Amino acid sequence: MRVDGRQWRTIWVENEAGDVGVIDQTLLPHRFTCRVVGDAAEMAAAICDMVVRGAPLIGASAAYGMALAMRSNPADDHLDAAAAMLAAARPTAVNLRWALDRLVGQLRPLPAHLRRAAAYKHAAAIADEDVAINQAIGCHGLDLIRKVADGKAGKPVNILTHCNAGWLATVDWGTATAPIYMAHDTGLPVHVWVEETRPRNQGAALTAWELSKHGVPMSLIADNAGGHVMQHGQVDMVIVGTDRTTANGDVANKIGTYLKALAARDNGVPFYVALPSPTIDFSLHDGIADIPIEERSPREVTHIQGATESGTIVEVNLAPVGITARNYAFDVTPARLVTGLITERGITPASSEGLAALFPEQVKP
Amino acid sequence: MRVDGRQWRTIWVENEAGDVGVIDQTLLPHRFTCRVVGDAAEMAAAICDMVVRGAPLIGASAAYGMALAMRSNPADDHLDAAAAMLAAARPTAVNLRWALDRLVGQLRPLPAHLRRAAAYKHAAAIADEDVAINQAIGCHGLDLIRKVADGKAGKPVNILTHCNAGWLATVDWGTATAPIYMAHDTGLPVHVWVEETRPRNQGAALTAWELSKHGVPMSLIADNAGGHVMQHGQVDMVIVGTDRTTANGDVANKIGTYLKALAARDNGVPFYVALPSPTIDFSLHDGIADIPIEERSPREVTHIQGATESGTIVEVNLAPVGITARNYAFDVTPARLVTGLITERGITPASSEGLAALFPEQVKP
Repeated sequence: MRVDGRQWRTIWVENEAGDVGVIDQTLLPHRFTCRVVGDAAEMAAAICDMVVRGAPLIGASAAYGMALAMRSNPADDHLDAAAAMLAAARPTAVNLRWALDRLVGQLRPLPAHLRRAAAYKHAAAIADEDVAINQAIGCHGLDLIRKVADGKAGKPVNILTHCNAGWLATVDWGTATAPIYMAHDTGLPVHVWVEETRPRNQGAALTAWELSKHGVPMSLIADNAGGHVMQHGQVDMVIVGTDRTTANGDVANKIGTYLKALAARDNGVPFYVALPSPTIDFSLHDGIADIPIEERSPREVTHIQGATESGTIVEVNLAPVGITARNYAFDVTPARLVTGLITERGITPASSEGLAALFPEQVKP
Repeated sequence: MRVDGRQWRTIWVENEAGDVGVIDQTLLPHRFTCRVVGDAAEMAAAICDMVVRGAPLIGASAAYGMALAMRSNPADDHLDAAAAMLAAARPTAVNLRWALDRLVGQLRPLPAHLRRAAAYKHAAAIADEDVAINQAIGCHGLDLIRKVADGKAGKPVNILTHCNAGWLATVDWGTATAPIYMAHDTGLPVHVWVEETRPRNQGAALTAWELSKHGVPMSLIADNAGGHVMQHGQVDMVIVGTDRTTANGDVANKIGTYLKALAARDNGVPFYVALPSPTIDFSLHDGIADIPIEERSPREVTHIQGATESGTIVEVNLAPVGITARNYAFDVTPARLVTGLITERGITPASSEGLAALFPEQVKP
């Protein structure tokens, strides 16, 4: 999407030598800085340190990491070593494994001298496929926004989102944001309520940054305020992303999503989840019982990073020294609270029947 | 309550000369510092700058501000000027007006030479009355906690609270925290989930501080996590405070309270509101329609104060420079989501009938 008028993706081939460029997301929203990644170890570090983050972008980054590895040494043992090193960068990231398995499967049968070119080609394909999936999600979601806009006589469609399911988490467009960017780009008036998304503040740091840089009207609010704005008729629809959705439509997403689904239901606001189909886990049928919720460092709750008046980025303590804090990273929104799932194949009710109808090849006989 | 083993109130007479001591709440949780307030202008500044905050404490502070004014000059014109200056310190604080009207009404009939002693006496009475009300709330709420404890076979009763309705907001005990302190002090095992309460972080800065300093087991969580812990059976009851409750039991409280009431209802967790009866507004009958919600500076959302590693207290920016933020300070929880109101007279359903039965003298014929 656009940053100050110029078109960007989150990952690209920087030069003819095959170095890879990425946006350093650890410095957003304070500094917009790009990094050139020159080998697989640097890419593993970029993934590990969350210079690149978001499941689809991690997948594309791992694929380009393999390309960098093949550039330096296309031998079998280096192929395996690079894949193992990249896989260890974020051990629980499903997209990371998937991209690496795909690249290794495509490269191993080839003679070593063909692997470099093939790796760049396959990495580019993974990136382009992500863009195509998000564009398809955007088109389907755009229809929903257009229908709401038809009833608003030119007034903006107010959309609330949580966390960052934006283009920064993908290669381009984002998932939850794809319909929003498309609506904005086609001239439909939209306004986005961006929740800051404590404790890591992806909403304030990333979603607010990317929407405002693209020119989409938005307002940042505390996570606590989402219910109030719905209660006062200031939200027409909610669109969020998901990390994992079960076969019956239960949605695991960033902590706090469930609360907004409850508020949406209480106020008759439609609650949509945008997702690429690979995030659907057809082996699970009860999100609350079956999806393990990662508990992260309490330091993310007690401390926060920000910029001082002079522009220095520092971490500050917000809480009494030595207290106990708990940091649950995700929660599960039961399918009963979800109005619809926006996938690349279309929109479906959050139910086993709905998902099976849209993805019949996934249904075990 | 106790801080590192020593008993404290939030406001006291410091010495025989009549100076007034307060805790500087702007420096919590990083520094525990007291301030000596020597005249009414200093007290007005302390109220304005939120050195003292919380409706009951503001009332007591204003009363002591009048005592300081009478100490320096008990003449009629100074009485009026001091009351006007203190009233302007937080113009929308109902308790501030109420305490000042009461003091002025009590002092004006007296000859000037008796006003100083009377003012200190009446200020002490206001402080002691607040303590007595909170103790009564604590006793009634303690019964609720004890009933839950009876079914838990010695395991801690898990109580979730939002914002700071603690002793720091009152003269002592707090409202929502009074039952918790009493349970802890009587040996009932309790554990408190303290929500940080963005954007001003009263939970992290004040509630976590006061509970931990008194020795009550607690865990700090992001506001976003409240629904998740309820969904997983980790909360036995919710107790929050309120800024204003309508005659029919709708509860205005710190932004985000409504979301937790929804989660409590969705998970069968009892949701209680602790309140001194003066915060009930018997003239209002529809909280969502009738209670104006203060919108505060967007800077409270985009910036936050914390302590650097070296202990310096600084403000940092969390969001992209120049974006729009909105800062709704309160929300309204409809009476239908409230299990009960814990008042100094006992516990009642959040309904017109319930409140009228407990406060019959307030019902207009």
